[in-house]
Amino acid sequence: MTDAAIRPKKPATAERPPVADAAEATEPRLDTASVTDMLLGTWAETRRYAREMIKDERFWKIEGQSMAEHRERVLGQLRLLVEHGASRRAFPEEYGGLNDNGANLAGFMELVLADPSMQIKSGVQWGLFGSAIYQLGTEKHHDAWLRDVISLELPGAFAMTEMGHGSDVAAIGTTATYDPETEEFVIHTPFRGAWKDFLGNAALHGQAATVFAQLITGGVNYGVHCFFVPIRDASGRMLPGVRSEDDGVKGGLNGIDNGRLAFDHVRVPRFNLLDRYGQVAADGGYTSDIPSPGRRFFTMLGALVQGRVSLDGAATTASALALHIATTYANQRRQFDRGAGTDEVVLLDYGKHQRRLLPRLAQTYAQFFSNDELLQKFDEVFSGRGDTPEAREDLETLAAALKPLSTWNALDTIQECREACGGAGFMAENRLTSLRADLDIYVTFEGDNNVLLQLVGKRLLADFAQQFKGADAGKLAGFAARQAADRIFHGAGLRQLGQSVADFGSTARSVELGLRAEQQHELLAGRVQQMVADLAARLRPASKASPEESAAIVNACQADLIEAARAHGQLLQWEAFTDAVNRAPDEGTGRVLTWLRDLFGLSLIERHLSWYLINGRLSTQRAAAVSRYIDRLCLRLRPHAQDLVDAFGFEPEHVRAPIALGGEQARQDEARTYYADLAASGEAPVSEKSLRKK
Amino acid sequence: MTDAAIRPKKPATAERPPVADAAEATEPRLDTASVTDMLLGTWAETRRYAREMIKDERFWKIEGQSMAEHRERVLGQLRLLVEHGASRRAFPEEYGGLNDNGANLAGFMELVLADPSMQIKSGVQWGLFGSAIYQLGTEKHHDAWLRDVISLELPGAFAMTEMGHGSDVAAIGTTATYDPETEEFVIHTPFRGAWKDFLGNAALHGQAATVFAQLITGGVNYGVHCFFVPIRDASGRMLPGVRSEDDGVKGGLNGIDNGRLAFDHVRVPRFNLLDRYGQVAADGGYTSDIPSPGRRFFTMLGALVQGRVSLDGAATTASALALHIATTYANQRRQFDRGAGTDEVVLLDYGKHQRRLLPRLAQTYAQFFSNDELLQKFDEVFSGRGDTPEAREDLETLAAALKPLSTWNALDTIQECREACGGAGFMAENRLTSLRADLDIYVTFEGDNNVLLQLVGKRLLADFAQQFKGADAGKLAGFAARQAADRIFHGAGLRQLGQSVADFGSTARSVELGLRAEQQHELLAGRVQQMVADLAARLRPASKASPEESAAIVNACQADLIEAARAHGQLLQWEAFTDAVNRAPDEGTGRVLTWLRDLFGLSLIERHLSWYLINGRLSTQRAAAVSRYIDRLCLRLRPHAQDLVDAFGFEPEHVRAPIALGGEQARQDEARTYYADLAASGEAPVSEKSLRKK
Repeated sequence: MTDAAIRPKKPATAERPPVADAAEATEPRLDTASVTDMLLGTWAETRRYAREMIKDERFWKIEGQSMAEHRERVLGQLRLLVEHGASRRAFPEEYGGLNDNGANLAGFMELVLADPSMQIKSGVQWGLFGSAIYQLGTEKHHDAWLRDVISLELPGAFAMTEMGHGSDVAAIGTTATYDPETEEFVIHTPFRGAWKDFLGNAALHGQAATVFAQLITGGVNYGVHCFFVPIRDASGRMLPGVRSEDDGVKGGLNGIDNGRLAFDHVRVPRFNLLDRYGQVAADGGYTSDIPSPGRRFFTMLGALVQGRVSLDGAATTASALALHIATTYANQRRQFDRGAGTDEVVLLDYGKHQRRLLPRLAQTYAQFFSNDELLQKFDEVFSGRGDTPEAREDLETLAAALKPLSTWNALDTIQECREACGGAGFMAENRLTSLRADLDIYVTFEGDNNVLLQLVGKRLLADFAQQFKGADAGKLAGFAARQAADRIFHGAGLRQLGQSVADFGSTARSVELGLRAEQQHELLAGRVQQMVADLAARLRPASKASPEESAAIVNACQADLIEAARAHGQLLQWEAFTDAVNRAPDEGTGRVLTWLRDLFGLSLIERHLSWYLINGRLSTQRAAAVSRYIDRLCLRLRPHAQDLVDAFGFEPEHVRAPIALGGEQARQDEARTYYADLAASGEAPVSEKSLRKK
Repeated sequence: MTDAAIRPKKPATAERPPVADAAEATEPRLDTASVTDMLLGTWAETRRYAREMIKDERFWKIEGQSMAEHRERVLGQLRLLVEHGASRRAFPEEYGGLNDNGANLAGFMELVLADPSMQIKSGVQWGLFGSAIYQLGTEKHHDAWLRDVISLELPGAFAMTEMGHGSDVAAIGTTATYDPETEEFVIHTPFRGAWKDFLGNAALHGQAATVFAQLITGGVNYGVHCFFVPIRDASGRMLPGVRSEDDGVKGGLNGIDNGRLAFDHVRVPRFNLLDRYGQVAADGGYTSDIPSPGRRFFTMLGALVQGRVSLDGAATTASALALHIATTYANQRRQFDRGAGTDEVVLLDYGKHQRRLLPRLAQTYAQFFSNDELLQKFDEVFSGRGDTPEAREDLETLAAALKPLSTWNALDTIQECREACGGAGFMAENRLTSLRADLDIYVTFEGDNNVLLQLVGKRLLADFAQQFKGADAGKLAGFAARQAADRIFHGAGLRQLGQSVADFGSTARSVELGLRAEQQHELLAGRVQQMVADLAARLRPASKASPEESAAIVNACQADLIEAARAHGQLLQWEAFTDAVNRAPDEGTGRVLTWLRDLFGLSLIERHLSWYLINGRLSTQRAAAVSRYIDRLCLRLRPHAQDLVDAFGFEPEHVRAPIALGGEQARQDEARTYYADLAASGEAPVSEKSLRKK
């Protein structure tokens, strides 16, 4: 009975068994090939090329390799990427590039399947070091260095973070003081906390670094700018005044030579200031098209948004791989029978196991679709097709909202998959522990997740304030009062949702009707709106308070600000998923994807159920129905689980985990054959229990 | 201002600054030395001995060591443990032991601070392999092997789990068929899935194994029994018929040589059946004091409960270490100022950072106290002082309830600590990633956490049913109806808690009054009771249904059964914490610990807030107050955070993480001195912003 629930890998319509009854006749089926196309998204072709490329085992991570060997292997992999033309996509044609920003990131995201160290080291070389030269430099810099960056003739580090300052880049301690006598910048590390740290390529392979430092000229600090600083000669010797330390073993990504750099009055020519957004003349005069120091700083940092975009995609790909492994295993592995004589139960037939894997599968689908939207937005801005300050700001906010959600989800999903595979999940050969260890740092690098969500929260508050711009204070106060009233008389909230006592009945139909797409959207969007409005009301006194009181008020709201931003990101994911469902190629696929989207939406609502109750957005009866509905959706989706993970389109060379490549099924089959043969032979021992019954 | 919030490491009353005002005069202080005593619990002396012992750096894990080297090092550490007399505590005096079960586990738990691989490998040797001989064997077996087990002359594996069967031990495939001709048992692995797997000491060092197999004699299968089977000679060569494979690299614990074992008709003397609970006579006749095969099986498994008890403690110690590291760092590390001219803010002064660390600190305190109760119970039963079937069952349920909570919490806490330390947290030298990787497997070995919680849930259901034993069906139905009524008319639930409209006011005082110890207990205990009652009602139809329908009903309840068990475990932890608070040595300590206990209780209530709302146990107003109250508790506890982690009593040789040993403070001080000197010199560059204002 349980076997019937597992779909054959490639459902061929001609071979399907005759329809047994009406229920089965109307049961939808997923067109996995079409769904693969949907998941691969706008740059599917590049992704397929990348996946084909990394079938070559020279790209695969070797578990248990020593750090030194792993670092050399990954350096070699970067050279292979150059050979395959995978390093040039983002760069301009005149330097051998393809000027295709979306494709570049799409291809990059897939590398996580081979070895996350290779993904991140190539990200350091071409996405950070190379991008800083390209995005923050001007033509003379491109001419000087981009060809060698693309070809890996010039490996480099991206020296922004310091031991003492990570998220607060504006406060870094490294200085670049202009000397008009020699027309040089003096790069200097004034104290230990100003050492650049955690830099890929810094410990061994980097020959130069794009160094962020406080630009000082004529006794004035013009804030953080980026400088091209050679650090090693081609033979690997440190250049005078430059010091390097090795970060040593890390929690993951040990194929990357992370390290520290310090500069003792190192002189570089004036030429080496990457001067797209700020220039220093020979006499030391400073000029910039962006007069505001704050806006200039954020413009420079914003030019490097692609790291966040690509991590969002890579984390999603990694989550999908983990789900593919754990779901495939859960469809083969058996544990416990349901009483004498029955067969052992396949893991995925357990209610709890479904609850563990299927909502995370829904989440991961949502991320594929929202990442593709993010990637489109990124490509629009960076191709120049839609490059406005507003579009850039939107892109940055979108990336800052999505990257935290998908990277945290990757850790949560991979861990749940590891546990769902038991001891086998802990074996490195099955990849889950290794994948999790490598992705751990994704949640705090390229923008610490909590810091990013605060940025999003502030943007939401600014947008909210914008609504009231020009309105008098009374309007704002009135709005705040209505919000408060909603909470006290939360019947009002219920009515707004069009719920009536009549549909409080417990029949399945009315419950589902009340939690469909429109209501899900209303609940998710309403939560963001109200959280932001509540925060605005709580923060209003801060503007009139003393600096200390003001800081205390803001600080008291910090956790809630982050929650509002998270809710916003979840809403964006839900909307992207819903748009995708509406593009489903056939009715069956559409129905299964709708269930999965519903599971995603309802899981979000379940997670924040107390908020909906406290704020009168859901009645207790309806709230109780949410979990029951999720249970039903899990049951409905269970027969499609294998199709849904097969639709990720991974091939054995991407999966590589023995437990997901048929080994478990073979063992199960062998054991069952053994017992069947033994029973048939008549030589099977009788059980003590059956003996005692006689 | 922020600095004043950090307590000096050793508060000396004589040196305290003069009391500034009434508020400060009444501010409580924690007596850290007394709290250390409380945390170390009943076997504090043994714990202190173990902590002193592992200050020897030969016990410390070396990050990045190769698997082969790490395995040899850990074997050497086990020999050191023997030298220190740490391997004998649990065993009887006649074999050189101390017969001190509680002390044995208390000491074992501390080893996690040195290297979790050493902890677990010693657990394999003395807690599993040795325990199986001691607990499942009889005097003749003790005489034959225990001395060599204690001295490590005889390293062994514990061969229970198979590739095809982990949690479902009763269904293992290995057979032990008695041959009366030769008076031998034939140990056999009939198919690949019956290979013993994931066994420490199996890949390299084990010379024997305690092998669990289906005992077959006279054509009858008497179920799973344990056999002593030699596997290697002293030179490391496999014995005839025994095969071994290496599990290779794992997600953690790579200092242990986990591997697989298979037996091809391997003959062992009749003597080698560990026959405390079941005996085979020379002629093949089977006898046992426990007639029920089911009860016999669970009695044998129950004899091995100590693994779960000790993992609960080790996970707690590991969580404490992570919190010590992250909290100390958060009290030194600064990030972002609060506006021009102000100093940068210490991490732990951020509201979100407090929310991340302090509730986990409260959880860890709760675990110390509940683990000590568990350990007392364990010692009572295993010393024979209180060894009754009921006490054994209670002990097993308690262990099954607590081990999942503390091991999952360890992963969650260590991860949050790692993220709270940013990039520095990802460096292996700071220990958090390594500790997490090693503890990962704790959540699925020695009983998969979800499976253990199901056992607890079933026990709760059985106890619930016991209440109605002898009562007619009408009574049960009536109870169920009242439960349902509570949910529909949840005003009744509110009244039961003595809440009235009068105390719905929003003043802080009434809110706190309504969420103090008594109410916390009522809410936590009431939730367990109602969840169990609800489950009983939902499961009742299963007893009269067909096997298939019955299985479907049980399956639909699986996730909720696990949740009920989790709630039960949390209640036990809360009660243990509250008992400890009542033992506080002075008023100040008592007040701080009460806040911490409140934070624990309210965090649990916050986590399940929607349940309390749906079930009418909390009004929406009171529910909204829970989170605000937690915020206030965090603010109150913040000045005591360093004291609370110092009270864990770790010394630098236990901490070893550079970020928690003063390095960060030194860097901060150096940077601040640099800027102060620069400002004093008059040579500091002016900022562009200040220039523009002129």
